[in-house]
Amino acid sequence: MAEYQPPRGMKDIVPSEMERRKWIYTNIRTVLDSYGYSEVAPTELEMWDTLAAKAGEDNLNEVYDFKDKGDRRLALRFDLTCGIARMVAGMRIPRPIKLYAIGNAWRYDAPQKGRYRCFTQWDVELFGTDSTAADAEIINLSSDILKSLGLDFEVRINNRKLVENIFNYLKIDKKCYVDVMRTVDKIPKLSEYDILTEFKNAGITKSQATSLLDILGRKGNPKDLIPLLRKEFKDDRQVQESIDTLENLFTNLGKECILDLSIVRGIGYYTGIVFEAFDPKEEKLGSLFAGGRFDGLVGVYGKEDMPAVGVGGGMERLLEILEQKNAFEKMKRPKSVFIAPINDSVRPYAKKVAATFRKKGFMAELDLTGRNLKKQFDYANKKGFDYVGVIGDKEKEEKCFMLRDMVTGREKKIKM
Amino acid sequence: MAEYQPPRGMKDIVPSEMERRKWIYTNIRTVLDSYGYSEVAPTELEMWDTLAAKAGEDNLNEVYDFKDKGDRRLALRFDLTCGIARMVAGMRIPRPIKLYAIGNAWRYDAPQKGRYRCFTQWDVELFGTDSTAADAEIINLSSDILKSLGLDFEVRINNRKLVENIFNYLKIDKKCYVDVMRTVDKIPKLSEYDILTEFKNAGITKSQATSLLDILGRKGNPKDLIPLLRKEFKDDRQVQESIDTLENLFTNLGKECILDLSIVRGIGYYTGIVFEAFDPKEEKLGSLFAGGRFDGLVGVYGKEDMPAVGVGGGMERLLEILEQKNAFEKMKRPKSVFIAPINDSVRPYAKKVAATFRKKGFMAELDLTGRNLKKQFDYANKKGFDYVGVIGDKEKEEKCFMLRDMVTGREKKIKM
Repeated sequence: MAEYQPPRGMKDIVPSEMERRKWIYTNIRTVLDSYGYSEVAPTELEMWDTLAAKAGEDNLNEVYDFKDKGDRRLALRFDLTCGIARMVAGMRIPRPIKLYAIGNAWRYDAPQKGRYRCFTQWDVELFGTDSTAADAEIINLSSDILKSLGLDFEVRINNRKLVENIFNYLKIDKKCYVDVMRTVDKIPKLSEYDILTEFKNAGITKSQATSLLDILGRKGNPKDLIPLLRKEFKDDRQVQESIDTLENLFTNLGKECILDLSIVRGIGYYTGIVFEAFDPKEEKLGSLFAGGRFDGLVGVYGKEDMPAVGVGGGMERLLEILEQKNAFEKMKRPKSVFIAPINDSVRPYAKKVAATFRKKGFMAELDLTGRNLKKQFDYANKKGFDYVGVIGDKEKEEKCFMLRDMVTGREKKIKM
Repeated sequence: MAEYQPPRGMKDIVPSEMERRKWIYTNIRTVLDSYGYSEVAPTELEMWDTLAAKAGEDNLNEVYDFKDKGDRRLALRFDLTCGIARMVAGMRIPRPIKLYAIGNAWRYDAPQKGRYRCFTQWDVELFGTDSTAADAEIINLSSDILKSLGLDFEVRINNRKLVENIFNYLKIDKKCYVDVMRTVDKIPKLSEYDILTEFKNAGITKSQATSLLDILGRKGNPKDLIPLLRKEFKDDRQVQESIDTLENLFTNLGKECILDLSIVRGIGYYTGIVFEAFDPKEEKLGSLFAGGRFDGLVGVYGKEDMPAVGVGGGMERLLEILEQKNAFEKMKRPKSVFIAPINDSVRPYAKKVAATFRKKGFMAELDLTGRNLKKQFDYANKKGFDYVGVIGDKEKEEKCFMLRDMVTGREKKIKM
């Protein structure tokens, strides 16, 4: 007899993990629904061309693609943004358009411990307005999600336009922008020496590199940082404008938000505000959510361009950090009762007792095996039931049952 | 500029449909959780061998399979039962094991109007007991799901063992069983003439065929039918035993359940009780749920055999019938309020008002565009908000807002 397993890099979600996931999903949905965002489910399979239109070259190597039986090149989606942007390109509804999705995403890369080819993401997108208020709302609702889960975190925020304007201020050659941006993205991860080497390879002068590292290394309370930046770049109108955007943004954000000039979110499609949230004590775990403004993507999929700002996060990371913090102990479960009929003739009555408990909001399980009472108690004990309700002929006749509290051991006769 | 679409036979789920789906999902989960079933999520991709071990030859042609980049033959699952049975084969937990899943299933067949290559199923499985009480519970919880959705239906129930024992009673050759069973499965769909022709082709005599059609054509209240069957087959112990099972089952079922001797659920892997639920007025739509006992499947996937009974249904069918019955009008939505700040300087205060509404359980949307008040009202109107809260400088100063009821048009000043 063969043993069958899920394919390499994939896993089944068992009851204990599913219960935790559902608790997280409910928290996310409650926050997003209350903000007026609508859930959608873009198709999990996409045409290769759809994904290729968005993904950078690095990402395309990791796309889980295949040929279908009709020889079409298809792919399992690598994120949710792509499908949502494709959907929005065809929607004719009042703007702004506020959407979210929770679902699987796929990568075809070498599976590692704790890293799977299929994982779950949550993703929120706001289309049709380029206002800073929209950026603020996306950051605020993401913060509300983490708060609803009881997490501690810091949101590090920047404006990619500010970074580009600083490149310009330092007279960095436009041809070097992509390579320099790629290096800026690594500032939090690499040593100063490595960063300066990479800057050199990107083709900028030593003094440009030193200035960049000095300026973009700053992070902290925007109330302190912004006046300093204003002063330092007082003659550069473009830099001032990108600082205006940040200042306006921070008036609508909470205390958990700081300015971090090294945040650029890769060389991808972001065009304005960018942000990442971390638990400062669990930096290594990576970001808890990340996002930014991307005003160019919808135009790729439709006839018309549309400003957009979005955020996303990984479910597996939330599961990990919440487990570390024992947050799942706070999950509310309904009280549970195991209904133990002592013979088959009382079963129809026992069924009614179980149904009554269910109507009252209990999780009520009725024994289905006909095993003896001791074995029924063993099962109820192993599965951690709060109560066991015993039903024999006498109880059936008197329309009652004996309820045992499985913690205190006390028993009580209860009338239906 | 290209227009991108989902792949052939697949579709995105838009907000209006998603809202309806979520209402259905919540109803299903509420019932199943209250019965003590645990949700799982088997992986969506399976190794080809895993699916081939379960699927009949007819089904295998429709499996959505492909070669991955490592030249492995994989497939998108065609149902949820397969993955759940594979998971259970590896589980070491107290029995019975009660699991359910809600998720996508895939077929590679010619897409038709309203029929997609990717669709959603709900699926419940109960492992580890062969008791009739278990069969009854699976039917009862399925009925509770349809009742929670406000549907009218009839559950048609049979025992495959009874049908086989009747074959035996009529001295039908064992070699003909598969073909005869295949024809029995068509009794509700084909004419008497066609059925008799198929029976003939299956190799049974005319008198056997006429008797079969007579016996298996019976359906109705088990209280009337069962005594008649008992009398008719009073000398056949095996037939009597399969009637015992049905009689025992019906004592634990509700009034919506009838006996229908033509129900056999194909030639598949069912081994005992089988059932299908229909809305008698919408017969053409097909079954609302269907299932039965399959005691042989888990043994295929694991070291050990395990009795099992399960049920499943399609989400798209529920959406269709519920729409026909205008059931979605009864969906509860939270009250909604659109917060309209008249300028940017009152935005931080307006944000607090919106947050307060959200805490009170409202869906509260804050205008993010900075458009004028008329345009804000237009948007709120189009999107059907219950209330609009207007906030100007005066309201900010007085810590209040003007709330307009969008149905009555009445306005009221409300203190925070």
